Amino acid sequence: MTTVRLIADDEASPQVRAVFDDIRAVRGTDYINNFWRALACDPSLLAATWSRLKDVMAPGALDPLVKEMVYIAVSAVNGCEYCAHSHTASARAKGMSAAMYGELLSVIAMASQTNALASAMQVPVDEAFRS
Amino acid sequence: MTTVRLIADDEASPQVRAVFDDIRAVRGTDYINNFWRALACDPSLLAATWSRLKDVMAPGALDPLVKEMVYIAVSAVNGCEYCAHSHTASARAKGMSAAMYGELLSVIAMASQTNALASAMQVPVDEAFRS
Amino acid sequence: MTTVRLIADDEASPQVRAVFDDIRAVRGTDYINNFWRALACDPSLLAATWSRLKDVMAPGALDPLVKEMVYIAVSAVNGCEYCAHSHTASARAKGMSAAMYGELLSVIAMASQTNALASAMQVPVDEAFRS
Amino acid sequence: MTTVRLIADDEASPQVRAVFDDIRAVRGTDYINNFWRALACDPSLLAATWSRLKDVMAPGALDPLVKEMVYIAVSAVNGCEYCAHSHTASARAKGMSAAMYGELLSVIAMASQTNALASAMQVPVDEAFRS
Amino acid sequence: MTTVRLIADDEASPQVRAVFDDIRAVRGTDYINNFWRALACDPSLLAATWSRLKDVMAPGALDPLVKEMVYIAVSAVNGCEYCAHSHTASARAKGMSAAMYGELLSVIAMASQTNALASAMQVPVDEAFRS
Amino acid sequence: MTTVRLIADDEASPQVRAVFDDIRAVRGTDYINNFWRALACDPSLLAATWSRLKDVMAPGALDPLVKEMVYIAVSAVNGCEYCAHSHTASARAKGMSAAMYGELLSVIAMASQTNALASAMQVPVDEAFRS
Repeated sequence: MTTVRLIADDEASPQVRAVFDDIRAVRGTDYINNFWRALACDPSLLAATWSRLKDVMAPGALDPLVKEMVYIAVSAVNGCEYCAHSHTASARAKGMSAAMYGELLSVIAMASQTNALASAMQVPVDEAFRS
Repeated sequence: MTTVRLIADDEASPQVRAVFDDIRAVRGTDYINNFWRALACDPSLLAATWSRLKDVMAPGALDPLVKEMVYIAVSAVNGCEYCAHSHTASARAKGMSAAMYGELLSVIAMASQTNALASAMQVPVDEAFRS
Repeated sequence: MTTVRLIADDEASPQVRAVFDDIRAVRGTDYINNFWRALACDPSLLAATWSRLKDVMAPGALDPLVKEMVYIAVSAVNGCEYCAHSHTASARAKGMSAAMYGELLSVIAMASQTNALASAMQVPVDEAFRS
Repeated sequence: MTTVRLIADDEASPQVRAVFDDIRAVRGTDYINNFWRALACDPSLLAATWSRLKDVMAPGALDPLVKEMVYIAVSAVNGCEYCAHSHTASARAKGMSAAMYGELLSVIAMASQTNALASAMQVPVDEAFRS
Repeated sequence: MTTVRLIADDEASPQVRAVFDDIRAVRGTDYINNFWRALACDPSLLAATWSRLKDVMAPGALDPLVKEMVYIAVSAVNGCEYCAHSHTASARAKGMSAAMYGELLSVIAMASQTNALASAMQVPVDEAFRS
Repeated sequence: MTTVRLIADDEASPQVRAVFDDIRAVRGTDYINNFWRALACDPSLLAATWSRLKDVMAPGALDPLVKEMVYIAVSAVNGCEYCAHSHTASARAKGMSAAMYGELLSVIAMASQTNALASAMQVPVDEAFRS
């Protein structure tokens, strides 16, 4: 159950259709996942989000797999069910092994606990960390 | 201002002292940052947290720098000032360049926005993501 | 699946019944949504929550529709599935158009990303913002 | 203390300078707040963030003041000190009265408490909310 | 730096003054902490918040100290600096020992990490937990 | 739907089997809940998490029931569906009455709202709270 209707191909406006076509071309698959079909309720939000995602997740100073793992971490902390699933699937498609996933989960768990401790105790930042 | 007193070396109990010594040995520095001096208010919590952190952040299937970047991501989303500073410093010490940091920030920002969108619209998870 | 039983009309205590009756009168509908039937597990919590909600969401310096949109924003960030659905439904009933919802989603996404960036970089607040 | 250096005008690259100039032109002020000077550590992130913000916060189906109030709500829930200050200042500059701010705070508080209750009890979404 | 002015006694309206007087009477101290002086920017929000807090934190089926420790836990997870400090002070005033605080921190850290793990992996709720 | 396969007894490695056996022994039940079967995707994460949980949740300066209620509070704020259910079930098994649960929910709701208010207004911490 979603708050908006998922837009099917045959009801997509030309602007939505253009984004769907670009998603297909960039990813090399015909499949458009639900997130984009939901965002299509607002064509300009859809276009802006896809355009930025395409740039941000492209290879650069960081490997695309590293980026997917960072995405999983953010999504877990935000408790986003959809993004946890979609980016875990993406990370696996880009080569994340079971061992890598286990270590990723371990870091997420570790950071979550020390974040909570530092916030509870309100530990002052060390001068030594000044950049 | 912290909720507990930061424990100085000369007031550390033997159990606390042992952890401080191990932190110094593992990191190759004499400096003990405030987080550990605050956690020393509870020696068993200090020992358990350090022991686990040491294991989790060690090299493995993931590079230590990747782990630090995941740590930064989790800390940013949790709004943890202390951890954002300490792990950004650690990541730089392990080789994070300005370009890598810029891309890391971009992924964190991207994930935060799509997480919020997916949560607002409650997008249903695609069957295609089933592992 | 909820952690408490949803209280049906015929098992409601007089205190619960009085709140249900007031919800019906204020909203002009016979329907009591699940949130209130769950809260009824604690009659005083139910009464206090409903009484405050009624005051807060009434017309005032802000339009009730604006209040519903703020409610959606808070619920999205907190990842609250129930509240995202119930308040999106309320906002629509109060006149939120598709265009308004699209812009609301865009602001939620924008704020989520700049929040994450400001927290990651721990940007100091400008003196200029001092009220 | 921030994790990056705040970029002053005289050290800004041409790409950064162009964004700073546009911020000044759009806002009709010479003042560039710290968020943008921090983001300037990554010129493409700076440009993308500013470009999108300018579009999202412009008048449309929602009034710019409503957008600022939604921004405040998101920032409060995310615990973002910087954004709470900067967008409260912006909202006031756009006409938010003390009465409006008081009601905004009341809605944020109300939503935060019912979000927590719905999440604690895991209340199932009513069929009646299906769009 | 706060987004509103802290209201001093001599500028308090009669409605604000009445709440301040009640806080003093209930707590047996002349000191009014900043939270209430800030909330006084909206007298009805101030009155509603204090009235509810007084009821909720009173002795009942749960001991007031247990309630303060739950308050600390919520505040730590929400990253609320103010509330972490004020409720840790309150808990100590009500008898929280160093050992109790250490165990409280340990539970907060434990829950934060398993929450993150369960959210990352999206573990399905067991039928056995159905109430 | 989970991101990993839930490990059944007959496919558990010796390390996983040892943890499952210890869970059964400590809890005095044959039932292993899904969280542990999911964590078993990474045997060392499973072992570390269980070992720490066993220590943290044991009787000490705080009663085990108090610990479970703190766990519920953290899980509600983090929006963790799984943990809200599993720890509410545990708290009930340890004696949490309906009245206690109602007061726990009331404190969680109260703290969530004052946290949001303090964060929105960025109330400065009182000197009086300095430990």
